[in-house]
Amino acid sequence: MTLSRIRIVGSGLIGTSIGLAAVAQGITVDMVDVDPRAQSLARDLVKSKTGEEIDLVLFAIPLGALGTVLNSEFALNTKAAFIDVASVKTKVKVEVLASNIPSARFLPSHPMAGREVGGAESARADLFQGRPWVIDSQGVDLDVVEVGKELIDLLGAHVIDLPVGEHDQAVALVSHLPQLMASMLAKQLLGAHELWLDLAGAGLRDTTRIAASDPQLWQEIIASNHLALHPLLQNLRADLDHVIASLEDQEQIAKLIDQGRAGRALIPGKHGGKARDYRHLPIVIEDKPGQLAALFDECANAKVNVEDLSIEHSPEQFTGLITLALSEKDAEILSEHLLKNGWNVHPARN
Amino acid sequence: MTLSRIRIVGSGLIGTSIGLAAVAQGITVDMVDVDPRAQSLARDLVKSKTGEEIDLVLFAIPLGALGTVLNSEFALNTKAAFIDVASVKTKVKVEVLASNIPSARFLPSHPMAGREVGGAESARADLFQGRPWVIDSQGVDLDVVEVGKELIDLLGAHVIDLPVGEHDQAVALVSHLPQLMASMLAKQLLGAHELWLDLAGAGLRDTTRIAASDPQLWQEIIASNHLALHPLLQNLRADLDHVIASLEDQEQIAKLIDQGRAGRALIPGKHGGKARDYRHLPIVIEDKPGQLAALFDECANAKVNVEDLSIEHSPEQFTGLITLALSEKDAEILSEHLLKNGWNVHPARN
Repeated sequence: MTLSRIRIVGSGLIGTSIGLAAVAQGITVDMVDVDPRAQSLARDLVKSKTGEEIDLVLFAIPLGALGTVLNSEFALNTKAAFIDVASVKTKVKVEVLASNIPSARFLPSHPMAGREVGGAESARADLFQGRPWVIDSQGVDLDVVEVGKELIDLLGAHVIDLPVGEHDQAVALVSHLPQLMASMLAKQLLGAHELWLDLAGAGLRDTTRIAASDPQLWQEIIASNHLALHPLLQNLRADLDHVIASLEDQEQIAKLIDQGRAGRALIPGKHGGKARDYRHLPIVIEDKPGQLAALFDECANAKVNVEDLSIEHSPEQFTGLITLALSEKDAEILSEHLLKNGWNVHPARN
Repeated sequence: MTLSRIRIVGSGLIGTSIGLAAVAQGITVDMVDVDPRAQSLARDLVKSKTGEEIDLVLFAIPLGALGTVLNSEFALNTKAAFIDVASVKTKVKVEVLASNIPSARFLPSHPMAGREVGGAESARADLFQGRPWVIDSQGVDLDVVEVGKELIDLLGAHVIDLPVGEHDQAVALVSHLPQLMASMLAKQLLGAHELWLDLAGAGLRDTTRIAASDPQLWQEIIASNHLALHPLLQNLRADLDHVIASLEDQEQIAKLIDQGRAGRALIPGKHGGKARDYRHLPIVIEDKPGQLAALFDECANAKVNVEDLSIEHSPEQFTGLITLALSEKDAEILSEHLLKNGWNVHPARN
């Protein structure tokens, strides 16, 4: 089966982003939504076309609305494959079992991508680029799995096949718990002096960024996944009690910060590799065009692969600092190569 | 008094960033540090010069180390003004009173800027651009206040004059509480399945970014400010208890998310840091050595200056997404140049 025509039910951020990306790949997309304004905007953005013989019906709507559309969509597209993108997956399985859609024709899935702003107007075609996209292929027909994988691949995401129960535990930890913490932290700011908030820096802004998320969406996600969230929140409460009791104990506080660092280091870097696997090589360069090209020419000459990089400089400065992340071995090779060729490298001691 | 020569004691992130920015403004800077590698890197970056007749001695070292250097620095620079940049200010006042430095010659101050990565290698001259910088001028000689303000102004920051006690309450809320929450959240990741962490998105990365902070630094900050932190943590604990009890209650969860949105909305936007007003240009590239060099060759050919960049890709993927940050004008030039030369550029729609 090759994907040529998708019907996307739901014209919010995720549905419209999928539509944008699919159309860019030459697929014909039909966007629909119960809200006429959202539907019209999404159809405009995506250049949506109504048509027959849909290969894949994709549900990008709130969990609570799924039950009301499964049967009508199946009646319209009996031969299609079906897929959804809801954030909690055990509940979706239950809804599908209660519907007319044979469960072997429905692939539960969840793209690990999103923004704190919602709606078709926030959609972007590159939203899924490089992101994981969870599916649960257990008991699903091979052709349905294949068409789902084809779409995910076209959108630039990569497939992770995980049973729905395990998925729900994982997202409780990496997505739902951070949301609750960000909301609780941001709530503490209510009633604060305006001048105090003027002192806020990037730390407060980043830790509370997702607190701007949609309450309608999240009340459903949290409630649907309460079983997986409960033990995590209990652990957090025990840690909070311990912190309150040890505020003056520098050793205990350092231990917490250390454990936080260790936890943070487990989060894969922007490109999937573990941050801890890389060596960082700071190089002082002249802050002018051509310097980066020259540096990457050296990297190519030394036959090393740059895994990540960052630049630190400001317009008022005549030197810039570029930090390259490489494998341990490549860092050694490049460090030696650059020093030999007169570059200003500062390898760290460890 | 006009500022022409500063001695910066401490070559970490803050000290070196101040050094970089001050040198760019034509001030002679002498960087010193107890760690020879940090001192050497900082002196190299800043083009530091040793000299006599220091106008201002700036302490950018941990609070716990301050007591050991106040007297020796005063003995070396009896006529200088003194300033510090520590995160908790009541303790600094106590240290100064116990030293030989007359308290009227010492301006307690705190730049509201930082990064989760430390060290001279993370320093940037624009770190203070548009940021608030708290001073407490009460009981300080006018010429000392003036020289402090002159420096702050040169670095692009703006002065907020606040008594040290109120400062410590404010930073407990906007800085120390977020740090503890980020650390506690990141700690929950310890022991998680590796595959689960592969599902992490920008939400988890942002909420835990500052969890990568330095335990040495933070154990001291938290313990020094425990009085202001205690009531905030008690409030948080009450909210957490309520969330645990209401996990299945969609109305209560929506209320929390709503309150979080309201709190988040109180945080002022980024101050006019023009240096960081960049356009972002996403480019899909082949994920192999040589591609970055080729891309930066194009940047050099187009005579544009890349201000910042990030890479997103995964090991299982053969394409990666690189996002370049450039000035509005350079972004247009480069976008056109790259499209003409067959690159896969995705200028943002808005």
